[in-house]
Amino acid sequence: MQNIPFYQQAFVDYLDGYIQDKEPQSLYQPINYILQLGGKRLRPVLTLMAADIFDCDHKKALNAALSIEVFHNFSLVHDDIMDDAPLRRGQETVHEKWDINTGILSGDAMLIMAYQLFENYDATTFQALAQLFSKTALQVCEGQQYDVDFESRDDVSISEYLKMIEYKTAVLVGAAMEMGAIVAKASQDDILNIYEFGKNLGIAFQLQDDYLDAFGDPETFGKQVGGDIIENKKTYLYLKALEFSNAEEKQQLLHLYSLKPSDQTGKIETIKEVFDASGASLATRKVIEEYTLKAFDILEGLHVSEEKKLLLKTFGQQLMNRNV
Amino acid sequence: MQNIPFYQQAFVDYLDGYIQDKEPQSLYQPINYILQLGGKRLRPVLTLMAADIFDCDHKKALNAALSIEVFHNFSLVHDDIMDDAPLRRGQETVHEKWDINTGILSGDAMLIMAYQLFENYDATTFQALAQLFSKTALQVCEGQQYDVDFESRDDVSISEYLKMIEYKTAVLVGAAMEMGAIVAKASQDDILNIYEFGKNLGIAFQLQDDYLDAFGDPETFGKQVGGDIIENKKTYLYLKALEFSNAEEKQQLLHLYSLKPSDQTGKIETIKEVFDASGASLATRKVIEEYTLKAFDILEGLHVSEEKKLLLKTFGQQLMNRNV
Repeated sequence: MQNIPFYQQAFVDYLDGYIQDKEPQSLYQPINYILQLGGKRLRPVLTLMAADIFDCDHKKALNAALSIEVFHNFSLVHDDIMDDAPLRRGQETVHEKWDINTGILSGDAMLIMAYQLFENYDATTFQALAQLFSKTALQVCEGQQYDVDFESRDDVSISEYLKMIEYKTAVLVGAAMEMGAIVAKASQDDILNIYEFGKNLGIAFQLQDDYLDAFGDPETFGKQVGGDIIENKKTYLYLKALEFSNAEEKQQLLHLYSLKPSDQTGKIETIKEVFDASGASLATRKVIEEYTLKAFDILEGLHVSEEKKLLLKTFGQQLMNRNV
Repeated sequence: MQNIPFYQQAFVDYLDGYIQDKEPQSLYQPINYILQLGGKRLRPVLTLMAADIFDCDHKKALNAALSIEVFHNFSLVHDDIMDDAPLRRGQETVHEKWDINTGILSGDAMLIMAYQLFENYDATTFQALAQLFSKTALQVCEGQQYDVDFESRDDVSISEYLKMIEYKTAVLVGAAMEMGAIVAKASQDDILNIYEFGKNLGIAFQLQDDYLDAFGDPETFGKQVGGDIIENKKTYLYLKALEFSNAEEKQQLLHLYSLKPSDQTGKIETIKEVFDASGASLATRKVIEEYTLKAFDILEGLHVSEEKKLLLKTFGQQLMNRNV
């Protein structure tokens, strides 16, 4: 087992070799651009780490790790079009730097290239990886669609919201780890458990992202604090606040969430007070803790050394403390 | 071996069973809509036919055939967004009936669903099908990109144009047939040849589409005759006319192709005269004949009965006569 920076470096080196000048450049340049925008490469790191955990040279998992990262970036390119987002990692999004058609077509090509990376494995491994990939990728699409649908709905339940973030974000974290285990030819039990570990950690991570979006430190959070509130996003915090409100408080929150004031400072502060006073903040911190502990519980069932479990746990803690 | 209507019916029956009400409906309804818009289902028919040719029950190729059709419809959904097309088979396009975001996301899901259909085969067949599929799908994306690039270029060569239609249209016809042969576990030789047969027939078909777009019978062509001329599309006819023109004629044609008159009748007639007078019409009919004959030549190398070769040839002739 190695540390996170080691896997990050191993992955980025491999990615550099993957980037090529291919024709037509108008199709492949945007792909190279988005793949080289950086980021923490957490998903592919998880794939490499999972391979190592199950006693397989992490290098054998590089193509699976790259597939996960190419897919993740495909989803960013298409989501950014749908969200009309101008920036990604502080740089222009693909459809902004080129145009929407380029974003659509380059994204399509990336989805196909993600599958092609499995061709480096034997037929049985190929099938297992591609099957997991398809299931996961379709769930990511479904999660994105639920997210879009929720914007125009007033009756989103907590369980629907949890399913949405599970599909949109968490299953890919689970799949990233499962792919490492598949390449390592781990037992079916371990394959299942490492997926569940990743998925639950992914849910905890996304819920924490919701929480930090309102209550995070502007210095370290990386995104605009209050962004979800500005966009009237129905997050876990918001849905819990509604649940815990009486009729009058509910009315007030619904009213606040219909406003688009030019200066958002007051709205953000008022809503954060509602989140706190209603008990929604506490409930959110609790559910984050629950999913984190569930992930750590699942770890115990893995057939690997205590030392390796501890490493995975430490990684999970670093992730939840945003120190990775 | 059966006739075309038999395979069409077998395919449509299978497709009907594939259509399901899945959640989120906002993602899957547009998919069901486009898959049920109809069409001649020629690509999947070719897959079924190829399986039969190589002594395999066509039913075993139904999932591969469906994958080809799902992919083809994915590409229609995304291309229609890029082309801003309001109609497809006389009905509203997906992005017109819903919106662009729905078109993007439903298209993405279809690309993944196309891969999932291979999961019905054993690992070796799965890998062979998925590998061919990825190669082909990426070429289709590249072909679409070349087509977009050509719009703003004045120096498109004939060979570039042929590569574009090969990638955008013909390789999928080849792959449709090869998939039938893969499912039938045909010999490597036969797999290669049936692909080449389909590809060359596909090129001939697309060149003929260019030709009929200008010179077809408005009663039977199905699309607006003169559509390519109205859109100033650089087709084979146009590129050949340029090649055969002297400096003055070239100037005239370039000028005509810069106009967007409100009444297009005069422009269409003048350009058709240029196509005829320059020899471009004749050259186009010739090259269509060449690719058709090349396809039929390749047929001869197949290790199947003369009767089956004749059936494939008859199908090819019907296709080129647009009687299918």
